[in-house]
Amino acid sequence: MIKKIEHIGIAVKDLQKSEEIFEKLLGKKAYKHEEVKSEGITTSFFKIADQKLELLNAISSDSPIEKFISKRNEGVHHIALHVDNIKKEIERLESLGFEFISTTPKKGADNKNIVFLHPKTTNGVLVELCEEI
Amino acid sequence: MIKKIEHIGIAVKDLQKSEEIFEKLLGKKAYKHEEVKSEGITTSFFKIADQKLELLNAISSDSPIEKFISKRNEGVHHIALHVDNIKKEIERLESLGFEFISTTPKKGADNKNIVFLHPKTTNGVLVELCEEI
Repeated sequence: MIKKIEHIGIAVKDLQKSEEIFEKLLGKKAYKHEEVKSEGITTSFFKIADQKLELLNAISSDSPIEKFISKRNEGVHHIALHVDNIKKEIERLESLGFEFISTTPKKGADNKNIVFLHPKTTNGVLVELCEEI
Repeated sequence: MIKKIEHIGIAVKDLQKSEEIFEKLLGKKAYKHEEVKSEGITTSFFKIADQKLELLNAISSDSPIEKFISKRNEGVHHIALHVDNIKKEIERLESLGFEFISTTPKKGADNKNIVFLHPKTTNGVLVELCEEI
């Protein structure tokens, strides 16, 4: 079951510069930084009430964030929905015709198992499902 | 002061088709439809916990949503932040160097006064500030 919007992921070119922008915008500092080697990214997290903004910065040239930025420039990269049981949710959505980039959950940032739905079946929106490990 | 993420706005080409997609994805129906003549759009609202997804469909050719879709196709259009005092927040952000599309709040959907920050000063993200009327 989908419980809430967990975070919004934003692709950035220069993590330090973008952190300063979001610090000013939100009136608070990033509370966490994390490298996710499997995705070739570093991340910064901001809290807004019960949600997070996650800045995503490529640290390798084959990172999905590098590809996204070269195609669409900086901006919203994905919306993450918190689910209680990721396997059940993948099954439910596959049975309804949704396609996934991969149906095998992998370890993402912030101690989560994650999968991405393919934006071609979700109205051009890259939707992440995430489950607390 | 910024209180929470109020909603995420998603630009769509075909409101009925997109509503079906998000009904399946979220496992619930849209709870509200509203036309915003000043923006040339119709909207559908979905609740996810304390946040909303707002589908945005152009009903006139000079709608900002029509322009967005012709340039970037369907997808996330904006992130709306709920503020307690929109005028104070505009002043605070202008003093920090942020630029607005217009600094005069106008009436948006869902009984809100709204303004948009220019994405060139917010990392390519179109950020809406909204205040309950």
